[in-house]
Amino acid sequence: MGEREPARGPVDATQIPRFAGPATFARLPRCDEVDRCDIAVVGVPFDGGVTYRPGARFGPAAIRAGSRLDVDPFGAQQVADAGDIACNPFDIAEAIASIEQAAGELLGRAGHLMALGGDHTIALPLLRATHAKFGEVALVHFDAHLDTWDTYFGAPYTHGTPFRRAAEEGLFVSDRSAHVGIRGPLYAKTDLSSDAELGFTIVSSADYASSSIESIAGRIRDRVGDAPVYVSIDVDVMDPAHAPGTGTPEAGGLSSRELLLTLRALDGLPIVGADVVEVAPAYDHAELTTVAASHVVYELLGLMAREAA
Amino acid sequence: MGEREPARGPVDATQIPRFAGPATFARLPRCDEVDRCDIAVVGVPFDGGVTYRPGARFGPAAIRAGSRLDVDPFGAQQVADAGDIACNPFDIAEAIASIEQAAGELLGRAGHLMALGGDHTIALPLLRATHAKFGEVALVHFDAHLDTWDTYFGAPYTHGTPFRRAAEEGLFVSDRSAHVGIRGPLYAKTDLSSDAELGFTIVSSADYASSSIESIAGRIRDRVGDAPVYVSIDVDVMDPAHAPGTGTPEAGGLSSRELLLTLRALDGLPIVGADVVEVAPAYDHAELTTVAASHVVYELLGLMAREAA
Amino acid sequence: MGEREPARGPVDATQIPRFAGPATFARLPRCDEVDRCDIAVVGVPFDGGVTYRPGARFGPAAIRAGSRLDVDPFGAQQVADAGDIACNPFDIAEAIASIEQAAGELLGRAGHLMALGGDHTIALPLLRATHAKFGEVALVHFDAHLDTWDTYFGAPYTHGTPFRRAAEEGLFVSDRSAHVGIRGPLYAKTDLSSDAELGFTIVSSADYASSSIESIAGRIRDRVGDAPVYVSIDVDVMDPAHAPGTGTPEAGGLSSRELLLTLRALDGLPIVGADVVEVAPAYDHAELTTVAASHVVYELLGLMAREAA
Amino acid sequence: MGEREPARGPVDATQIPRFAGPATFARLPRCDEVDRCDIAVVGVPFDGGVTYRPGARFGPAAIRAGSRLDVDPFGAQQVADAGDIACNPFDIAEAIASIEQAAGELLGRAGHLMALGGDHTIALPLLRATHAKFGEVALVHFDAHLDTWDTYFGAPYTHGTPFRRAAEEGLFVSDRSAHVGIRGPLYAKTDLSSDAELGFTIVSSADYASSSIESIAGRIRDRVGDAPVYVSIDVDVMDPAHAPGTGTPEAGGLSSRELLLTLRALDGLPIVGADVVEVAPAYDHAELTTVAASHVVYELLGLMAREAA
Amino acid sequence: MGEREPARGPVDATQIPRFAGPATFARLPRCDEVDRCDIAVVGVPFDGGVTYRPGARFGPAAIRAGSRLDVDPFGAQQVADAGDIACNPFDIAEAIASIEQAAGELLGRAGHLMALGGDHTIALPLLRATHAKFGEVALVHFDAHLDTWDTYFGAPYTHGTPFRRAAEEGLFVSDRSAHVGIRGPLYAKTDLSSDAELGFTIVSSADYASSSIESIAGRIRDRVGDAPVYVSIDVDVMDPAHAPGTGTPEAGGLSSRELLLTLRALDGLPIVGADVVEVAPAYDHAELTTVAASHVVYELLGLMAREAA
Amino acid sequence: MGEREPARGPVDATQIPRFAGPATFARLPRCDEVDRCDIAVVGVPFDGGVTYRPGARFGPAAIRAGSRLDVDPFGAQQVADAGDIACNPFDIAEAIASIEQAAGELLGRAGHLMALGGDHTIALPLLRATHAKFGEVALVHFDAHLDTWDTYFGAPYTHGTPFRRAAEEGLFVSDRSAHVGIRGPLYAKTDLSSDAELGFTIVSSADYASSSIESIAGRIRDRVGDAPVYVSIDVDVMDPAHAPGTGTPEAGGLSSRELLLTLRALDGLPIVGADVVEVAPAYDHAELTTVAASHVVYELLGLMAREAA
Repeated sequence: MGEREPARGPVDATQIPRFAGPATFARLPRCDEVDRCDIAVVGVPFDGGVTYRPGARFGPAAIRAGSRLDVDPFGAQQVADAGDIACNPFDIAEAIASIEQAAGELLGRAGHLMALGGDHTIALPLLRATHAKFGEVALVHFDAHLDTWDTYFGAPYTHGTPFRRAAEEGLFVSDRSAHVGIRGPLYAKTDLSSDAELGFTIVSSADYASSSIESIAGRIRDRVGDAPVYVSIDVDVMDPAHAPGTGTPEAGGLSSRELLLTLRALDGLPIVGADVVEVAPAYDHAELTTVAASHVVYELLGLMAREAA
Repeated sequence: MGEREPARGPVDATQIPRFAGPATFARLPRCDEVDRCDIAVVGVPFDGGVTYRPGARFGPAAIRAGSRLDVDPFGAQQVADAGDIACNPFDIAEAIASIEQAAGELLGRAGHLMALGGDHTIALPLLRATHAKFGEVALVHFDAHLDTWDTYFGAPYTHGTPFRRAAEEGLFVSDRSAHVGIRGPLYAKTDLSSDAELGFTIVSSADYASSSIESIAGRIRDRVGDAPVYVSIDVDVMDPAHAPGTGTPEAGGLSSRELLLTLRALDGLPIVGADVVEVAPAYDHAELTTVAASHVVYELLGLMAREAA
Repeated sequence: MGEREPARGPVDATQIPRFAGPATFARLPRCDEVDRCDIAVVGVPFDGGVTYRPGARFGPAAIRAGSRLDVDPFGAQQVADAGDIACNPFDIAEAIASIEQAAGELLGRAGHLMALGGDHTIALPLLRATHAKFGEVALVHFDAHLDTWDTYFGAPYTHGTPFRRAAEEGLFVSDRSAHVGIRGPLYAKTDLSSDAELGFTIVSSADYASSSIESIAGRIRDRVGDAPVYVSIDVDVMDPAHAPGTGTPEAGGLSSRELLLTLRALDGLPIVGADVVEVAPAYDHAELTTVAASHVVYELLGLMAREAA
Repeated sequence: MGEREPARGPVDATQIPRFAGPATFARLPRCDEVDRCDIAVVGVPFDGGVTYRPGARFGPAAIRAGSRLDVDPFGAQQVADAGDIACNPFDIAEAIASIEQAAGELLGRAGHLMALGGDHTIALPLLRATHAKFGEVALVHFDAHLDTWDTYFGAPYTHGTPFRRAAEEGLFVSDRSAHVGIRGPLYAKTDLSSDAELGFTIVSSADYASSSIESIAGRIRDRVGDAPVYVSIDVDVMDPAHAPGTGTPEAGGLSSRELLLTLRALDGLPIVGADVVEVAPAYDHAELTTVAASHVVYELLGLMAREAA
Repeated sequence: MGEREPARGPVDATQIPRFAGPATFARLPRCDEVDRCDIAVVGVPFDGGVTYRPGARFGPAAIRAGSRLDVDPFGAQQVADAGDIACNPFDIAEAIASIEQAAGELLGRAGHLMALGGDHTIALPLLRATHAKFGEVALVHFDAHLDTWDTYFGAPYTHGTPFRRAAEEGLFVSDRSAHVGIRGPLYAKTDLSSDAELGFTIVSSADYASSSIESIAGRIRDRVGDAPVYVSIDVDVMDPAHAPGTGTPEAGGLSSRELLLTLRALDGLPIVGADVVEVAPAYDHAELTTVAASHVVYELLGLMAREAA
Repeated sequence: MGEREPARGPVDATQIPRFAGPATFARLPRCDEVDRCDIAVVGVPFDGGVTYRPGARFGPAAIRAGSRLDVDPFGAQQVADAGDIACNPFDIAEAIASIEQAAGELLGRAGHLMALGGDHTIALPLLRATHAKFGEVALVHFDAHLDTWDTYFGAPYTHGTPFRRAAEEGLFVSDRSAHVGIRGPLYAKTDLSSDAELGFTIVSSADYASSSIESIAGRIRDRVGDAPVYVSIDVDVMDPAHAPGTGTPEAGGLSSRELLLTLRALDGLPIVGADVVEVAPAYDHAELTTVAASHVVYELLGLMAREAA
């Protein structure tokens, strides 16, 4: 009874210049302004788990500021901005609990979450909330680093450990997951074999130098099969030239074009949730990192919107 | 009938960290979230009138981002954020008309306006709207430059001319107004005498080196007398060391402390409106300029709130 | 009667260090210092047509400063620096008229123009002046964006519309022109089909990930055939990693090497004029953008010089 | 039996250029290179207690890099660099315990500590170690902020609370301590009265605009009397123009000259320990903050050396 | 026979925007464009004598770029830009000889020189050329450092030694010279007494905190008496907050206002030559340093022009 | 007699955070802390030979600071940090002599040297010392420029001439050497033919656009054959997007991944020494260049360690 309000897009750039208007992602409506929300963009400004350069707490605001040039509507899907999840900057365990709870509540109201970090610690509670709604997922993880360390300074929950914890908790399908963009000299042989036991396959950054994006995307698609997919993207998967504003930069990474085209080539996969993390704007220049990150978010929203449609 | 909702302040920083939460000025509520609005903070992202470094179109968003550390409540007065006035970036005359109209409408709903520029061109339509509601005002103008040129490239409305136009339109009381912080070598003798004819007195930046802030504030207070006051602050009144993010930097300016203490010493004057303009964040560093600008705005809000109380 | 003065190159770097000497492009002579001028490098410091980050008004001076490392002589052709075209920063229509007139006058004295922007608005009057001297040209347009919008805020002449206006005015051959480097998600389907009607073909940035530069250059050469060519290069065709100092950065772009090699592969085409636009130095770092832009200009000068020889 | 090795100063700048040589503070010897250590400079790279911009974990390394221009020998006193205290970045309580223990051990081997932060959280364990060796001290605290909040997000130990905890633990003499440089609008009346109960007097930044440095130093000297003194300096006591590289910048602060001359005017006070904290180099420019901080450290070392002599 | 051409000022900013036009100082004519030249502004891009941060070789170009906002004509005096003196970057002795010779030749054609450095090494050959034309001068030297060291790494000619060499060569009047703005902890007692023997008096930066600018200027005027004056200004006399772009930054310096007002208070002194040195633009931000330096140059030109008139 | 101390690696990052601890390369032990040293990392902070942007004197300290994320142990080989070679900043000849002598002494105590520049001038004395120990080497030279000019301003020893001097001195095998990454338009035909006479082959940056890294590495391996290899890497071989912090940036260069993978593909070659030069940190951003440079150093250490094992 009664028609659904048509999905609303960003404010009209021919009426309100891109440098004006709301500070939401892509100048989309806020969640409280729309009847329903197919995909909620939500900030998670937590960086208490970083081991090197901190500052990802300013990531969500910065990605939103960098998203003002994103323009295309998402078709029939309603994408809206849910604001930030407030979490305790001094207590990792409490922050993780807050994020899990808030994400769970949001998933009660919204179809899917597109999270803006924050450091990679937040992937664990996001995966928990995703698992609670969608069950086991295939994890496609873009990163320079494995993030499957065990502990650091005795801490089990840091930005270097989320996927080990997630594996232990059975949050993703062990033989359907992949790391993409990994590069070293950071990893000892033990790291790699220990990682393999968790069920990941690795597409390295070096693979991009010798394979086409099509074939890389093919490897990822083969890996995930028909499982629902969660995509977690640490912006340091890109080379520091393309994403300087991050906490643990690693030379030899992907160009932004390689990352964006890889995502585009995943079109059709059933993506149920995603995060883009480790944007540390204090190290950014001229919005290089946040423009790239916001394009990545935009691409993910498109994948989710088409899938959800 | 029915009690007024108590005034609402910024979101609680012990619940939502300062780096999270809404992107409004000082994380105050939006105008659409409150019953009444004693003072509306409004962005005017227009910089089509600049003669040197452009970029003040990004000023309102940047001042808001720099205001996250502002914290104290404003007592019984309700301060809220009215968002931005959209205006045509390609047509100065149309933009001025839009600003005048939007400011007038806002002043119908809010007691006072605290405008965030934008370049100094916007002072003219703001003064028109102020005049329409409050009549002739005393103008206290903080700036490195007089902004009373006649035309530039034949254009009557630019960031160098608002106060000549305002004088011609009779928007302020001619013998109750002052320029504060002026410095040269920018001005020829003809500029100064021509300016004096418009009814301004000048407190130069050099005066700060030989007079106490108390005596300078005394000169300003004597000048304005008991007229209602409009305060227009070009951030380039501060030295570029304190406010690098601006369009026409001029060495030899005020420190941020000199500016803030001068404002504080104006306590009790009946301030009916104000603007802070010429923040060009592309030239800022580490939020130097926007933190200073947001403190200046905060101080002005305090002056207005106490006066309005 | 009398011999022609031999062509003069940059000042000798073994006598005057690269960080000293004239501030002309590549330290070449000024037009008023040479008898004849085969190619005039001319600045067009206008940015009144930008929709996002302004500042390209400082582009010509910055590109010249970034060109001090360019060194090789241009053979028998005399390249000289014609300084800047002064144009009204407050009135787009008047500025366009000034540029058209000044460019026309320069083309009366110089063989060809190599223009340094300024925003992309300037391509329209430059194309008009080019058309007046050389007739219809094939347009090869490197850009992240189509720049074939109709209007913006009601304005027909902005940096997003020059090629729609040029098409309407019949300034280029409709089936011999190409956009190179286009990428989205910026464009709706209607944009693309509307653009196709104007007679452009598109080589996207994504095409560079799957095709060799040779084959891309081949597509461009096939397209332009034997028509005289005007090359218009928006530096945002490069990825922001390579050209951060620009107004509407778009991740996923060309590397500077891809751009330079594509140009080099156009050797032999009859290039009659060119522009390099949208350098906004306030967003640059360590002359990244201006060094790349000056190399691009240098490459274009070489193409023109060899063709003109 | 046997003579004491003469005190050693920095490496000789006429033999080893200032941009070469060891990365110790002022290129002084390491503690392990000298027989005795009258004053140990020690880094405490902990920033887990910050409420806004993090990054002071990189402070000690950055202050050392900024100290290469510090040159004068410290007379007969041996000053040496003790390296960094390693502490857990993820657990504030554990970090505080580590710092207290390490500082205590260092004070067993060295006469005095000059600590380089890190955020202001570290002042608490440093005061505990100082108290254990020297008993109750007069605390002279330079800062924009009081740092006497009770808790934040429920956390008792953060960079906003060290002096409340210290007061509760009786680590300083309650009527002999002073805050210097405090400024608002950050503080509500309740903050100030609550602070006064802890036994502090306040010299505000505004006081510097109306009083001579001599008289301000006189107020501080009167306050501390003949008690042993601990000096804690948050670099945000300086205006952001002078110290942009910090976590909670506050306009309207002291110039570096005001701070340095105030310290110099404390000559003769029995200073038993000191810290310089809240240098966040990610926000610094051209070593502005670290050069100022290293000069401040240098001044404190001079005060301690003369006193200890 | 024939009238003298009237003095020419900068290009008209109402016809050619400040961001366009020639890259000369203050957009003044070049020396080769005018009949006579009362004051020649000349760049000396040499930095081979620096002991810490190099880069002052880019100073002249950067000061010119920062001078576009300088506007007022210099009355009847013709000021023109003489370009740069080319000098060997690899051989200090040869460079000094080149500078002396070129400055001497320029002084044959121009009344006075206003030199833009380059590092402070250049003051020696400039003083030699000045001495050759005007005889012994009173030297007024603004600097954080004495620059009267003897040698450094065995080198007699560096940026730390020009005034010792000049004293040895009898280039200035020994009891009529002054250092202004000196600060340390940089100087040992022996440095100061050794310096005093050269005939300098010292006005320290600390003196500015306790004396009025009027009284400081009085001390300088008393010192120089009626001797012809050479003013040498190292921009590091300003605090790094005001002039970050320099080679040996020293906290606790003068504000740009203090420097500019001190110069203005020297009006009437017979200034026969001047230099502004040690601008290292790689460390500058938003033209802070170059705008301040160009204002200082402008002030010096005014002093010379009024004196010469 | 007695067992050899086991090789020691970096300090343990799980005990001492990466942002703390010693400022040695990769936080490795200092040479004076270990019994033997298979590979010594040594800084050569000399930049007196640069022709454009100076500042590589700060390169060694900056590369060390950027190397804190390098982590993997080097197996049985002991790598240690030998600190900096002090050299006269004012006298190129004396500096070259100092470097040659110091490098020779180090090679008496250490197996191999891994030098951190400094400008490319230092390659000559390093090659001399290498030749003295290992005889003629094959030189693999990564650079945008040939560095085989004859003189500059009459100077035979600059950063543009080391390999011509080295060829003249017979320090490398003339038909076994290669330049990699060269690009123009910097070189005239005479430069190239003159270079070929010195015995170099050239792999250009453009070659990377059309060949696989495998084939490029194959060309290099074929060229060097079984000669002992010295690798000299100017960071400007990378595109300025990847390495902005350098003295003579040249667009169109290698990505950091291309450089790192090329090095990795040289595994097995008998590398006897290496340098990484021309890091000028004043032009760097967010440690882009120093992180890339430190990864390059790390890769070279790995090649040397595996070869030496």
